[in-house]
Amino acid sequence: MSTQKVQIVEKILDANDQLANQILKKLNDAEIFAINIMASPGSGKTSVILKTIEKLKGEMNIAVIEGDTAAVTIDADKVTALGMPAVQINTGGQCHLDAVLMEQGVDALDLSDIDLLIVENVGNLICPASFKIGTHSNVVVASVPEGDDKPYKYTNIYRGIDVLLLNKTDLLPYIDFRLDYFKDGIHALNQNLKFFEVSCKTGEGIEDWIDWLREKVKAQKNHR
Amino acid sequence: MSTQKVQIVEKILDANDQLANQILKKLNDAEIFAINIMASPGSGKTSVILKTIEKLKGEMNIAVIEGDTAAVTIDADKVTALGMPAVQINTGGQCHLDAVLMEQGVDALDLSDIDLLIVENVGNLICPASFKIGTHSNVVVASVPEGDDKPYKYTNIYRGIDVLLLNKTDLLPYIDFRLDYFKDGIHALNQNLKFFEVSCKTGEGIEDWIDWLREKVKAQKNHR
Repeated sequence: MSTQKVQIVEKILDANDQLANQILKKLNDAEIFAINIMASPGSGKTSVILKTIEKLKGEMNIAVIEGDTAAVTIDADKVTALGMPAVQINTGGQCHLDAVLMEQGVDALDLSDIDLLIVENVGNLICPASFKIGTHSNVVVASVPEGDDKPYKYTNIYRGIDVLLLNKTDLLPYIDFRLDYFKDGIHALNQNLKFFEVSCKTGEGIEDWIDWLREKVKAQKNHR
Repeated sequence: MSTQKVQIVEKILDANDQLANQILKKLNDAEIFAINIMASPGSGKTSVILKTIEKLKGEMNIAVIEGDTAAVTIDADKVTALGMPAVQINTGGQCHLDAVLMEQGVDALDLSDIDLLIVENVGNLICPASFKIGTHSNVVVASVPEGDDKPYKYTNIYRGIDVLLLNKTDLLPYIDFRLDYFKDGIHALNQNLKFFEVSCKTGEGIEDWIDWLREKVKAQKNHR
C-alpha cells in the first residue's frame, strides 16, 4: 500500500474507534452487556443466538442486531419469532459491520428495556476483525466442519477475540478434526480467551456458555 | 459512501480489471486454462484442488496459486507433496486476491509447462467477488454444513460465478440441508452456472467436475 493509502485507512479506523467508544459508553449507561459475534458463513452464529435466547428468555431481555450483506431478513425473522426484538442491518455488500452501521442498529432499539445485546456480524473471518463496533466482548463461532487448521490461517481474528465457541461438535464422529491441533493453534495466538465446545443441535456444552454470559450480564448491572 | 469515495473505489476496480485482462491474455498466449476458486473458510477448496490434481496428474500439468491472509504454507505444501508447482501468496491480511497479487503469482511460474492453473482465493464469500484476477472461470465451493441459505445471504458472489461445487455431500445424512431450497436460491441469481454435487471424502460426483475441466483445458488448446 502507498503511504497515502495507509494514512487514509488509519484515519478511517481512528474515526471508527472513536464512534465505537461512544456506543460503548451509551450501552454502559443503559447497563447493557453487548457481544459481537463473528464467524465464517455457516458456522452457526444464528443457531448460537437462537439457543442463547431460548435458554435465557425467562431471565433477561435480549435484543439482536443482524448484519447481512444482502437485504434478507432470514436471521432477524428467526429472532423475532422467539419474541425478542431484532434490527436488520443491510450493509449493502460491505463485508463487515462498522461503528456507523452499529450506531444505526443501537439507535433503532429501546435501550431502557435490554439486558443483553447480541450483534451478529457479517459472515466473514477476516474483515470484521479490524472494526470495533462498541461491544464488550468479541466472540468467534468456529465449527467442526470448517477444519482444525483455521486458527493457523485466520490469525488476525483469533488473536483479537475474548471468547471462542467451537460449534457442531455433534459432527466430530464424521469429520477428521484434531481438537488438540486446533487448541494449540489458538493458544499460540491468544492465551486469554474463554473456550467453549458446543453443539447447538444436541445442546451439549451450551450451559457453560450460558453461565458465562449470565455472569457478564450480572456484573454489568452491579458495576454501575 | 461519499461521491469521492465511490470515485476512488471505481478507479481502483478499473485499474484492477485492466491488469486482469493483461493476465488473461498472457494465460491465453500460453494456452493455459485458469480457474479462480472462491469459498468460505473450510468449505473444502484445498480438498477439491488436491482431488483434482490426483485425478488429472497423469494427463496434464497443473499449477496452483495459493492465496492466504497469513504466512502459512499448509495448503501449498499439500500441493507440492503431490508433485505439482505451487506459489504461496501472502496477502498480508488483505481479504481477497486482486490482479496485482495474481500477477506476482503468475510471474513466479514457468507458464510454458502448464495446462491448467488453479487459483485458491482467500477464504471469504464476499470480497473476492469484486476483484477480477484474470482467470477464465470463477468457481465457488459451497459445502453442506454451511447451510442451505447461503445463496440467499451472499448474493453477489453467487451471481457472478460460472461453476458451483456443493462439497461434503457425504454429510447430508447428518445435517438438515434442503437441496431444493439451495438450488432455488442459486437459480434465482444465476441460471447459467454449472452445478456439481461432490464429496471429496468419498469421491462421489468428482468425475463430472473432472470431465468439465478436461473439456475446458482441451478447448483452450484447440482454440489457438
